[in-house]
Amino acid sequence: NHEEIVVIEGDGIGREVVPAAVEVLDAVGDFEFVAADAGDAVKAETGEALPQATYDAVADADATLFGAAGETAADVILPLRTAVGSFVNVRPARAYPGVEAVQPETDLVFLRENTEGVYAGHEDRLSEDLSTLTRVVTTSAAERLAAFACEFVADRGSDGFQVVHKANVMRETDGRFRDAVVDVADANGVDTEEVLMDAFATRVCLDPTQFDVVVCPNLAGDVLSDLAAGLVGGLGLLPSANIGPDNALFEPVHGTAPDIAGEGVANPSAAILSAAMLLDHLGYGAAADAVRDAVESVLSSGPRTPDLGGDARTDAVTDAVIDRLA
Amino acid sequence: NHEEIVVIEGDGIGREVVPAAVEVLDAVGDFEFVAADAGDAVKAETGEALPQATYDAVADADATLFGAAGETAADVILPLRTAVGSFVNVRPARAYPGVEAVQPETDLVFLRENTEGVYAGHEDRLSEDLSTLTRVVTTSAAERLAAFACEFVADRGSDGFQVVHKANVMRETDGRFRDAVVDVADANGVDTEEVLMDAFATRVCLDPTQFDVVVCPNLAGDVLSDLAAGLVGGLGLLPSANIGPDNALFEPVHGTAPDIAGEGVANPSAAILSAAMLLDHLGYGAAADAVRDAVESVLSSGPRTPDLGGDARTDAVTDAVIDRLA
Ligand SMILES: CC(C)[C@H](C(=O)O)[C@@H](O)C(=O)O
Ligand SMILES: CC(C)[C@H](C(=O)O)[C@@H](O)C(=O)O
Repeated sequence: NHEEIVVIEGDGIGREVVPAAVEVLDAVGDFEFVAADAGDAVKAETGEALPQATYDAVADADATLFGAAGETAADVILPLRTAVGSFVNVRPARAYPGVEAVQPETDLVFLRENTEGVYAGHEDRLSEDLSTLTRVVTTSAAERLAAFACEFVADRGSDGFQVVHKANVMRETDGRFRDAVVDVADANGVDTEEVLMDAFATRVCLDPTQFDVVVCPNLAGDVLSDLAAGLVGGLGLLPSANIGPDNALFEPVHGTAPDIAGEGVANPSAAILSAAMLLDHLGYGAAADAVRDAVESVLSSGPRTPDLGGDARTDAVTDAVIDRLA
Repeated sequence: NHEEIVVIEGDGIGREVVPAAVEVLDAVGDFEFVAADAGDAVKAETGEALPQATYDAVADADATLFGAAGETAADVILPLRTAVGSFVNVRPARAYPGVEAVQPETDLVFLRENTEGVYAGHEDRLSEDLSTLTRVVTTSAAERLAAFACEFVADRGSDGFQVVHKANVMRETDGRFRDAVVDVADANGVDTEEVLMDAFATRVCLDPTQFDVVVCPNLAGDVLSDLAAGLVGGLGLLPSANIGPDNALFEPVHGTAPDIAGEGVANPSAAILSAAMLLDHLGYGAAADAVRDAVESVLSSGPRTPDLGGDARTDAVTDAVIDRLA
């Protein structure tokens, strides 16, 4: 009757940062960890980047912690989002005191639609010259996302949220998305501001403090949250959550970092912060806050891995985080 | 037998910055200017944001200088791109010495596919709940863009270009785009580097000097060039060109700026730099360089409009640019 957490290290530094995050989870709770494989390495061995057994384990678990996959990233992460029934990808992007950032005041959360848009992926080769992709937008997906956003801003203590879209060009599809999101927010008494996707890209660079919680279609959320990652100093510190109605998958936003993989110097912060989101999801809010505080404390005055200008190893940072857990 | 340039001021500060750019063109060459209407104001009067007479004038001209349109922007600019047969939108994004920028080393040019992608705009309302948009990608459009890019990098003295895409998700459509662009570059001995759209957003924030000439699908070019605009300090200084086989339209990237419209304090630099791109296009490369040098000189040591922290008026800046023309 302990919660069952599937753990997928994947490739590259996933094999270093996921064990670090599991150590932290072990330090704050009593979980049953179930290891599963996915990514380039298992594909090389078995021919499949995402074995059925892994898919099934993820679908049945209480939550999954995933590291990173290399070339096969899309083959792994897109089906796993489906496995947990995820309708929203939660991507906080904040700068940390003491960590160099292009815009050190950045503190945003993207709520990315996680099932459709161009990711619905109906593509056709219509002629030698011409291919098409059918972008799919439903009112029901936008409404579910918006309902989540309304609860999210209430929990965060925010006044409302921004809705990003490109409805001046994609009038029917992004118009539908915008209208559905705004209608749900209105019905819940939550304020919204509409921002065109291109204007958002300019404005967030100039002054990220204009934004707080940002609700986006799938591809917009992918690109704009990665933009914000650039503003806070890179992907190294960013966690993310793929949330479904009764299951979820957590992953650092960074990739496999092949240049440093295997050296034991990967920064475990993003994976540990992803574990904190997992704790939140399972209802251990106090433990989640303790983990975030410990990571923040180590980032500002503890050992640092080389990506942050230090020379500490992954396990030294992990030990420091565990030491500082309140 | 002077070149005929259609001049569309449009709305808001378009009415201030376009006349400034026309003054500069008048100072360096002998052109026949033909005024035409488009935008919110003409729509309020006539019901049409883009009168047929304007469309025809643009289609028949040697080149068009356009200011900005308000709410009707998409109804104006998308058909006008078609009117000039534009297949590429050229968007330089560079920072200027003396102008505050998030990333002052930025000096990029985006070459944006200008005819298809999600802008091809086949949208359908399939049910109460569901709408679709058909994204269109052809090899022929990608090849034409790539051929332009190969000439462009040669003129610029660049080694090659980056190709941005999201072919890990849009495998068939962006895969087609990427393959066609890379094949043309290979055949011309031009180096290419592939960058995923989301990774580009992160990397360009962290270090824009990694990039030089960036070839993109339509929506990616829209969003990523606006991102770069944020890095150089805003849209205020950015010109753009919509190039077709034998016609073209030039416009500042900024909009109508309703907050300052009518006050005579709009920054005319982006419109004047757009006029410089027009001069290049008509074959007056020396005049184009002279205009760019004059604008740069005024930006670093001349009168400044309020957006750049000064208190000069539009005409003072314009006069200064004309004074400094070599
Ligand atoms: C690997 C890729 C398919 C994925 C996406 O585009 O969603 C990644 O960029 C992400 O954002 O998690
Ligand atoms: C007004 C709009 C349709 C247009 C576009 O998306 O192309 C604008 O953002 C631009 O980039 O010129």
